[in-house]
Amino acid sequence: MLLTVIYIIAITAEAMTGALSAGRRSMDWFGVILIACVTALGGGSVRDVLLGHYPLTWVKHPEYLVLTCCAALFTIIIAKWMKHLHSIFLLLDALGLIGFTIIGCQIALQMGHGFVVSAVAGVLTGVSGGILRDILCNDVPLVFRRELYASISFVAVIFYWFCIDFGLSLEITVISTLVFGFSLRCIAIYFGLEMPKFIYKDHDEQSASSKDPS
Amino acid sequence: MLLTVIYIIAITAEAMTGALSAGRRSMDWFGVILIACVTALGGGSVRDVLLGHYPLTWVKHPEYLVLTCCAALFTIIIAKWMKHLHSIFLLLDALGLIGFTIIGCQIALQMGHGFVVSAVAGVLTGVSGGILRDILCNDVPLVFRRELYASISFVAVIFYWFCIDFGLSLEITVISTLVFGFSLRCIAIYFGLEMPKFIYKDHDEQSASSKDPS
Amino acid sequence: MLLTVIYIIAITAEAMTGALSAGRRSMDWFGVILIACVTALGGGSVRDVLLGHYPLTWVKHPEYLVLTCCAALFTIIIAKWMKHLHSIFLLLDALGLIGFTIIGCQIALQMGHGFVVSAVAGVLTGVSGGILRDILCNDVPLVFRRELYASISFVAVIFYWFCIDFGLSLEITVISTLVFGFSLRCIAIYFGLEMPKFIYKDHDEQSASSKDPS
Repeated sequence: MLLTVIYIIAITAEAMTGALSAGRRSMDWFGVILIACVTALGGGSVRDVLLGHYPLTWVKHPEYLVLTCCAALFTIIIAKWMKHLHSIFLLLDALGLIGFTIIGCQIALQMGHGFVVSAVAGVLTGVSGGILRDILCNDVPLVFRRELYASISFVAVIFYWFCIDFGLSLEITVISTLVFGFSLRCIAIYFGLEMPKFIYKDHDEQSASSKDPS
Repeated sequence: MLLTVIYIIAITAEAMTGALSAGRRSMDWFGVILIACVTALGGGSVRDVLLGHYPLTWVKHPEYLVLTCCAALFTIIIAKWMKHLHSIFLLLDALGLIGFTIIGCQIALQMGHGFVVSAVAGVLTGVSGGILRDILCNDVPLVFRRELYASISFVAVIFYWFCIDFGLSLEITVISTLVFGFSLRCIAIYFGLEMPKFIYKDHDEQSASSKDPS
Repeated sequence: MLLTVIYIIAITAEAMTGALSAGRRSMDWFGVILIACVTALGGGSVRDVLLGHYPLTWVKHPEYLVLTCCAALFTIIIAKWMKHLHSIFLLLDALGLIGFTIIGCQIALQMGHGFVVSAVAGVLTGVSGGILRDILCNDVPLVFRRELYASISFVAVIFYWFCIDFGLSLEITVISTLVFGFSLRCIAIYFGLEMPKFIYKDHDEQSASSKDPS
């Protein structure tokens, strides 16, 4: 029940971030809808395809697909006022990240996988929608460059496991993971926390990426 | 029967567009063949993987894979004369788009899916080969920027559904959808029709895509 | 037994190339780990998803995933001394390419596929990890631009088939394919052998890729 509500908020928020990305690239309406769908439903689809968990969520519940399309069209209409909603938007996105992570983790556990695979499933569900969005928009995925994002998804998985290991009920586990992960993400955004970066320059650099003006 | 002929024309045409894209990036022959295969067979593969429809077409019928490779090598040979064939090429590509759409839609229907999923399957089959081609060539997918393309695929799916709903036989439905979609695409190319674009600029723009010289 | 050893060497070497690529793009540690995993395990995952061969290797043996993560972190630590190890690295990568190819080919054969599909499976396993790495790092895949790489994978598949056709035992076939492919790759690197390139310029070039500064 709770997870379904969070899932709906999450796909709506992710669809809107996708639509805005497409708008930055001046795509047509169809492109906006496709990028929104990929951003919102791509993470779960990648997880399901890799785990062989058929049918995919949007195949079983096409209404989520319709919702995503509506969210994309709605974003086109309200884009002018978007800047004033920027912070609400970041919060919804944070909620979505943790919600997706928990759902991905649970599905892997239900399929009988262990910690490593369910951690990967959780993080993949949380971040790969955004990665696909950035690939389709021809960016280096932002998830690897900005404030803590994927790592919070990973920490949330670990927290979730501890809660279950301590014998907490599923409901309490889900709610406390949500609160924990959400607070962590808010702290990361507020203080601009970042993972340490790995910067490597080699003598091939010049020739290997000579097309890149940066 | 008819669909098989259209499918063969479609994968040949798509393989040739893929090979030309690879040539624009000065790839080696192997890259040309791979891009051609991805362009021609990628759309169907994406659909089959997402719907869990195994085995994929090219696994079941490896002869299509061989055909695609031959088309790619043939394109390398005739590339010099390609400019004079430009319009024939666009027509074949239009035929391929509608053919792929109908095939994708039919497969989803045969699997027992409803309108939304079969529409997605049809459009995915039609456009995702080209999207994968553009990703591998490191472009923003052209399908979101040029004349009506993906939207025609979608309109063709709706037309197809109406025909079936009206009780028309499968053969007549397929032929009339082909004629309808093909004409629509020709009109779109001739008049340069485009979808409205969604253009969004925000204060993050500068930093988010500072690598992009455009 | 032998193949497992080669597989472990191969994923370690590939994970390190992935980590270095991520470092060239100044990604954070999480990005480094993700790119390393995609590079090392992505080829096999693409093959398994396309052939419907579930569960994927890293789902069945999560220890390979852990190994890949460790290799990525290790690369961050030893990156400073990497330049002196450049040639050892190229040799490990060559071993990995042929090892992946043989494994991919064998899996397709065990599933009952014929020559064309098992050749595709072999080449895909060998090269698509590197292609995914380059897509995530927003490069045109290097595999299509550098010295003979994918084509050696293909030649190794043909050699493998000939050995099996001649009635050689599996062990001898694997070892001789390894030696053959490895030598071929070393020769290609040493002499800088390249596939012929297909270079195509058309009147659309200017508009189609106007974003590209090259």
